[in-house]
Amino acid sequence: MSGFDVVFDFDRRKRIGVDEAVLCERKTAQQIAAILEGARARGVGLFMSRCQPEQIMGLPRDLAEAIDYCSLSRTGFFGPVRSVRLTDKVAIAAAGTADVGVALEASRTLRYAGVEASLIADVGVAGLWRLMDRIDEIRRRPIVIVVAGMDAALASVIGGLTPGVVIAVPTSVGYGVAEGGRTALNATLTSCAPGIVVCNIDNGYGAACAALRILNAMGDGHSKSRTEE
Amino acid sequence: MSGFDVVFDFDRRKRIGVDEAVLCERKTAQQIAAILEGARARGVGLFMSRCQPEQIMGLPRDLAEAIDYCSLSRTGFFGPVRSVRLTDKVAIAAAGTADVGVALEASRTLRYAGVEASLIADVGVAGLWRLMDRIDEIRRRPIVIVVAGMDAALASVIGGLTPGVVIAVPTSVGYGVAEGGRTALNATLTSCAPGIVVCNIDNGYGAACAALRILNAMGDGHSKSRTEE
Amino acid sequence: MSGFDVVFDFDRRKRIGVDEAVLCERKTAQQIAAILEGARARGVGLFMSRCQPEQIMGLPRDLAEAIDYCSLSRTGFFGPVRSVRLTDKVAIAAAGTADVGVALEASRTLRYAGVEASLIADVGVAGLWRLMDRIDEIRRRPIVIVVAGMDAALASVIGGLTPGVVIAVPTSVGYGVAEGGRTALNATLTSCAPGIVVCNIDNGYGAACAALRILNAMGDGHSKSRTEE
Amino acid sequence: MSGFDVVFDFDRRKRIGVDEAVLCERKTAQQIAAILEGARARGVGLFMSRCQPEQIMGLPRDLAEAIDYCSLSRTGFFGPVRSVRLTDKVAIAAAGTADVGVALEASRTLRYAGVEASLIADVGVAGLWRLMDRIDEIRRRPIVIVVAGMDAALASVIGGLTPGVVIAVPTSVGYGVAEGGRTALNATLTSCAPGIVVCNIDNGYGAACAALRILNAMGDGHSKSRTEE
Amino acid sequence: MSGFDVVFDFDRRKRIGVDEAVLCERKTAQQIAAILEGARARGVGLFMSRCQPEQIMGLPRDLAEAIDYCSLSRTGFFGPVRSVRLTDKVAIAAAGTADVGVALEASRTLRYAGVEASLIADVGVAGLWRLMDRIDEIRRRPIVIVVAGMDAALASVIGGLTPGVVIAVPTSVGYGVAEGGRTALNATLTSCAPGIVVCNIDNGYGAACAALRILNAMGDGHSKSRTEE
Amino acid sequence: MSGFDVVFDFDRRKRIGVDEAVLCERKTAQQIAAILEGARARGVGLFMSRCQPEQIMGLPRDLAEAIDYCSLSRTGFFGPVRSVRLTDKVAIAAAGTADVGVALEASRTLRYAGVEASLIADVGVAGLWRLMDRIDEIRRRPIVIVVAGMDAALASVIGGLTPGVVIAVPTSVGYGVAEGGRTALNATLTSCAPGIVVCNIDNGYGAACAALRILNAMGDGHSKSRTEE
Amino acid sequence: MSGFDVVFDFDRRKRIGVDEAVLCERKTAQQIAAILEGARARGVGLFMSRCQPEQIMGLPRDLAEAIDYCSLSRTGFFGPVRSVRLTDKVAIAAAGTADVGVALEASRTLRYAGVEASLIADVGVAGLWRLMDRIDEIRRRPIVIVVAGMDAALASVIGGLTPGVVIAVPTSVGYGVAEGGRTALNATLTSCAPGIVVCNIDNGYGAACAALRILNAMGDGHSKSRTEE
Amino acid sequence: MSGFDVVFDFDRRKRIGVDEAVLCERKTAQQIAAILEGARARGVGLFMSRCQPEQIMGLPRDLAEAIDYCSLSRTGFFGPVRSVRLTDKVAIAAAGTADVGVALEASRTLRYAGVEASLIADVGVAGLWRLMDRIDEIRRRPIVIVVAGMDAALASVIGGLTPGVVIAVPTSVGYGVAEGGRTALNATLTSCAPGIVVCNIDNGYGAACAALRILNAMGDGHSKSRTEE
Repeated sequence: MSGFDVVFDFDRRKRIGVDEAVLCERKTAQQIAAILEGARARGVGLFMSRCQPEQIMGLPRDLAEAIDYCSLSRTGFFGPVRSVRLTDKVAIAAAGTADVGVALEASRTLRYAGVEASLIADVGVAGLWRLMDRIDEIRRRPIVIVVAGMDAALASVIGGLTPGVVIAVPTSVGYGVAEGGRTALNATLTSCAPGIVVCNIDNGYGAACAALRILNAMGDGHSKSRTEE
Repeated sequence: MSGFDVVFDFDRRKRIGVDEAVLCERKTAQQIAAILEGARARGVGLFMSRCQPEQIMGLPRDLAEAIDYCSLSRTGFFGPVRSVRLTDKVAIAAAGTADVGVALEASRTLRYAGVEASLIADVGVAGLWRLMDRIDEIRRRPIVIVVAGMDAALASVIGGLTPGVVIAVPTSVGYGVAEGGRTALNATLTSCAPGIVVCNIDNGYGAACAALRILNAMGDGHSKSRTEE
Repeated sequence: MSGFDVVFDFDRRKRIGVDEAVLCERKTAQQIAAILEGARARGVGLFMSRCQPEQIMGLPRDLAEAIDYCSLSRTGFFGPVRSVRLTDKVAIAAAGTADVGVALEASRTLRYAGVEASLIADVGVAGLWRLMDRIDEIRRRPIVIVVAGMDAALASVIGGLTPGVVIAVPTSVGYGVAEGGRTALNATLTSCAPGIVVCNIDNGYGAACAALRILNAMGDGHSKSRTEE
Repeated sequence: MSGFDVVFDFDRRKRIGVDEAVLCERKTAQQIAAILEGARARGVGLFMSRCQPEQIMGLPRDLAEAIDYCSLSRTGFFGPVRSVRLTDKVAIAAAGTADVGVALEASRTLRYAGVEASLIADVGVAGLWRLMDRIDEIRRRPIVIVVAGMDAALASVIGGLTPGVVIAVPTSVGYGVAEGGRTALNATLTSCAPGIVVCNIDNGYGAACAALRILNAMGDGHSKSRTEE
Repeated sequence: MSGFDVVFDFDRRKRIGVDEAVLCERKTAQQIAAILEGARARGVGLFMSRCQPEQIMGLPRDLAEAIDYCSLSRTGFFGPVRSVRLTDKVAIAAAGTADVGVALEASRTLRYAGVEASLIADVGVAGLWRLMDRIDEIRRRPIVIVVAGMDAALASVIGGLTPGVVIAVPTSVGYGVAEGGRTALNATLTSCAPGIVVCNIDNGYGAACAALRILNAMGDGHSKSRTEE
Repeated sequence: MSGFDVVFDFDRRKRIGVDEAVLCERKTAQQIAAILEGARARGVGLFMSRCQPEQIMGLPRDLAEAIDYCSLSRTGFFGPVRSVRLTDKVAIAAAGTADVGVALEASRTLRYAGVEASLIADVGVAGLWRLMDRIDEIRRRPIVIVVAGMDAALASVIGGLTPGVVIAVPTSVGYGVAEGGRTALNATLTSCAPGIVVCNIDNGYGAACAALRILNAMGDGHSKSRTEE
Repeated sequence: MSGFDVVFDFDRRKRIGVDEAVLCERKTAQQIAAILEGARARGVGLFMSRCQPEQIMGLPRDLAEAIDYCSLSRTGFFGPVRSVRLTDKVAIAAAGTADVGVALEASRTLRYAGVEASLIADVGVAGLWRLMDRIDEIRRRPIVIVVAGMDAALASVIGGLTPGVVIAVPTSVGYGVAEGGRTALNATLTSCAPGIVVCNIDNGYGAACAALRILNAMGDGHSKSRTEE
Repeated sequence: MSGFDVVFDFDRRKRIGVDEAVLCERKTAQQIAAILEGARARGVGLFMSRCQPEQIMGLPRDLAEAIDYCSLSRTGFFGPVRSVRLTDKVAIAAAGTADVGVALEASRTLRYAGVEASLIADVGVAGLWRLMDRIDEIRRRPIVIVVAGMDAALASVIGGLTPGVVIAVPTSVGYGVAEGGRTALNATLTSCAPGIVVCNIDNGYGAACAALRILNAMGDGHSKSRTEE
């Protein structure tokens, strides 16, 4: 495929307040390497999502070593990472241990953008006391990302208990009629708690981007794009 | 269709502890009338489910008047009803007002068999306090039928709070990805709370029959069929 | 169904910043009347959604006359409406004329809560110039609700052009593989533009509730619930 | 993911009469090891489900050796197992040889809780005589778990012949329109035999938990939770 | 649409042993009338399927009166009907009363072609004794058409008990996950009994045509088409 | 799983005219070995379907060597094979080269039962001349099995040209909306040619069993079961 | 909804070679009237699709009378119609009588744009001779629109016989697994004949628009838009 | 499978203007080798699609070396390739880097037939400026193939901006509700831009064949089949 240059959207943050990221799924190591080298040439960093260890291993050594990689969330930071500039704004609640990978994808996306989120795991409603132990902490954050598979009942329960923005990320955890996350997705979309918004299955990255858009709207200094234009 | 006699399973209760009922859906008024007359000739009553007012109106007057009909649950009692012989065994929890029709189908099926259930409505988890106000009452019953549409999160929350048997009846309440009850069905089948069992969408009748089988197993005197044989 | 009192969640706004509304679908006129009378007895108003003209006509006359009803959006205001306290925060973009009913459901939900949104119709991408004529207006609002059926490409295009929060409401407009809105839903969930969040099909009410949660987070004075508790 | 402690629900049996189990699917060996060590520290045992041989092999040797593992059912007993306290209450009927793994998951879940079930295999209705040879044995048990894939007709036939509680577990056995068990699931949910209740596809564990809830309700001494509270 | 002549396949029986029939669904009364008049002009009769009473009423009176119409099966015989030339070859078993309409569509299609089938209704497996009362009669016929909705377990049970050809016709009887007959269809396609063949949902006409093809193959004198050509 | 004896239905042919076969899918090599040894002990042979090479390799050597295995159709003959007693009755038409595996499954099932079928490959309708070259041969057989994936148009075209029994076997050949064979399945079920009957996706075995039932009905001496009983 | 002006894309033909049309489905009579009046004010005509007779009847009388309406295709010409400028370029083949409505939608869309197409009906492949009678006529046209429901085998057969562009329009004709046209859609998308392109179910309008784009590309004088700009 | 000769449709181009190609998916290396040798014996070349590297490696060395193979598009040219005879007629626009494989399948199919297309990658609408940079180039071509996964909004945007023929190829790029390309497929079929035609998911080959049919219709000298016959 020599001859096809990848056209990367390096000005995305200026335009919509969110950096372009590299969705590694379905890309060859060569394609990823070309994108990373393009970024290095411009002197910018990149966030990598859905990146398998084999893809990292297929990269030239100097590129691979420049990546801070997390296998549980399949994410990588390429190049320098912004310092933390916001805390206490976003809570991420994960229903079960198997949902933690997606929750980490969200928290690392936020961290790459300079936002430190708190991750609260194992609060599924089968043992409601676990959620109740943490609910005050959740209610204090203006934005809550809820990560849950199977029936995703956690999203509805949190949605009924907190005034903050609730962003649901259904996960593909479960088997049989969990249907790869479709049941969790549909359950959050038809939640009895009003005003819950939803992202694609396993899309922790998208939930974090939505949180960044909301933080922009809250005027928390993340992006100046609206006022600059 | 003259010439086709309906072959009714009048000995069903003796065999499996549950009477045969008349599922009226897709039957003509003539077909229903033939079944009712067959029952009258044998001197037995019948429980009718999914029966529309137009079907009642299409019956000969004497048959129609012998039916105790409830339009909200679309059920009818034809002929004498057993006296109540069991109470305090079954609670029926309905998430929302629109689920009450299905909940009544369950409670009337039980009542026809002599079992008085308590119906607890409007305890959906969007307002968790409503459920918590009633949870002790629910926990005291050995059998809980949970009737809920949309995300059906109520089943999981109750399943995590009570040691009793939890029978979920997903309902077709909701729109869009509620998908006529499939989302509620799948959510209850993949519930994070262990040991919940599930019936077909809107099948309050089936849930009540399952409760009757369990009451049989509990030896509460409903059926002697197992010991007789 | 005499004997079943509807248990309304009148404190919902205090708890989560959004009033409980009456979803009229699948409720009988009697059930709706009971809820309205409960509200009147408490001296509060109510927002009604998915309410058919026949349901209004089935109400006692005094209740029906107390409702400001809009047939296009199938919504009603029962009782006094808050005065407008926020403007210029929310834009609602509707792809086609047939999507306007859902867009109005969102704008009237917001209006009932005191928020005036601007509605921008007929900006579907088949004629991109129509969107470009209005894009600066859209970009100035921190929150954009995009209402679109069929391929819902409008959500992706707007998501790529504005830094604000983008809430997509897929609609059931279309036929064949539009599949009652599922295609629009899935297309917005898999949008190539990052950080778009999605509501159930035709759920203008839910999108407005999400916007209210975000306005709460922005500290625009809508709700004091977080700080009060 | 160091820093995230798994929050296990060790009091689940006290609350709902069923122990929490470890669903191993989608958990790393490290996550499973952390849970097992937490249990050992508390001096309790654990039941493990959907556990692959590779997961066992990834555990520290001392943990792996403390597990009584069954590869056919993918289950493990970690730590001491209760002695048998109930027999003759539960029959498990499996339609075909390929269904035996799921049937064993159910029987081992029950055994871990001290209940000995009888497993009756190869009684699919294509050779009805095989079922008729065993039907008296099945009819004597108050609870029957029916494990069947493809058309799952066995559940309906047993449901029409026994007064006991019938819990159907559809399996993913079959190909083409067996659709990974969805056909068996739907067939059991729409069974012509009344009062059959259903679990998720391949969920032998869930069926056993439901049986435990029913045994609780029957007052067979398994749990004192209801009376204690 | 004047100007479009309907091109009817009047030689179909000569070619494939089955007459062309008029599928009335989605045809206007004018279109049906044109076809009937074409047949009358050629001096042949026609079999009409899926014909609503309103369509009959929309025909010119002389055409309508020339039709022997059956509303339960929605079929009509237009013109002379062949005399019976075959009996005792085909049994039609219907699981429930609501399946009788489809069963009649099959039996009337056969009757129009001169084949008298026996219809055996109400033999669903929930009451297995009803089937066992009739099984010898069924086993004596070389061809059995099984008409059943919901779980369609009847097809598997009969398939396991008879050496004859078993043609299953799933019906749309049932609700919820019966899914308009898809569950019955899939269940019969994945039947544990070998060699069952299946027709489209509610397609009693197609099952009868298949039976006619088999009778042709059996050399029972129905068609000479193979040898004639 | 020691202790569970496989209960094989060795009298199936006597009862329904078709031998029981071993569906190897989802069976362990040990389970298959146990069944084969049971057959050897009784002195009978067995037909094996959906059998992977790895399963053959996992068997004890003497058993493996007693199998006539065909990897393209994944079938095996264990023990002696009947001599051919019928020819010229069944044609098997396969649309494309990729469909030949399923076609061979059908032809080998028939061969095991003593019926020699002719296999006609590469007659897909994209090159209609290829079918027309062979159509006379197809029309001379009383039974035609049509094996086709993707749009499966071949079944309809043959169904419109031959008076014989047409049994369609949709295959999983194709990608995208071929949906693993569901499109081919649905297309054959809704064929515009009347009287086509259908088997499960890739179920060449089932189509052959159906052909055997029809040959039984034709009195071609295959089975005496009907007359013997 | 006073205050929302419909923004019509009157320059669409200049930009993409196809006029904007009015999709009447889901529009109120008032909305349609507003669009028609806007067109009249500009002195242009409009093509109306999916327009029900009730919608026509709801229009002001002068508007209704200015429409040349066809109920079979649910289309209307509002205002002057272009004279015919192209013939012999497009053939429209409809499989059955019930498909003629959609075929007419295509032919009237073309006619409104000045293109006269020939409509060839009743050429479904169940009677292949009917197609063969007309195939030379079809092969002479550079563009063939094939309109077919159920299995839509006609598209594959024509695709294998003609070198012209083949545009398939699957229709919702059929029942059961015809699934409202999805089977026909999928069958045409997976056609064994190469290079067939497909439109949405029942979308005769879209097929005609595609034909217009192709005629543009053929330089047949329909549009000068490419060269003008 | 010795004895089954592959019947290749070598005259396809003469008949329909498109060569038969070898769809390698689901074919064994032996089957592919037989086809290639048949072509060599006739002295013709062949285009191979969906061909995995392992299939190439399984071929006899002389055949493998005669193939110009491209792993990204999984296509091969066997034997001599026509010289380029047409340029500037077809543009291929790919939304993202992961879509390039399918785009190359289209461009190589065209190249094998002597048509040089321009490939324009990375023009997804999330960064609309990238498309606008290239839109004039796209508008100058009479045929545009749009290759896009996920929401496939690119097809609608291009469809609204260009008068040329727009052939959409949805791809399986994406996860969750992208559903293997079904969302992209449905979105392009329900596009708000009129006259877009669609191919099967990932079917770059089919889109190229459709383009060849259109070029035939445009009389660009590719095929003389229509006039020759």
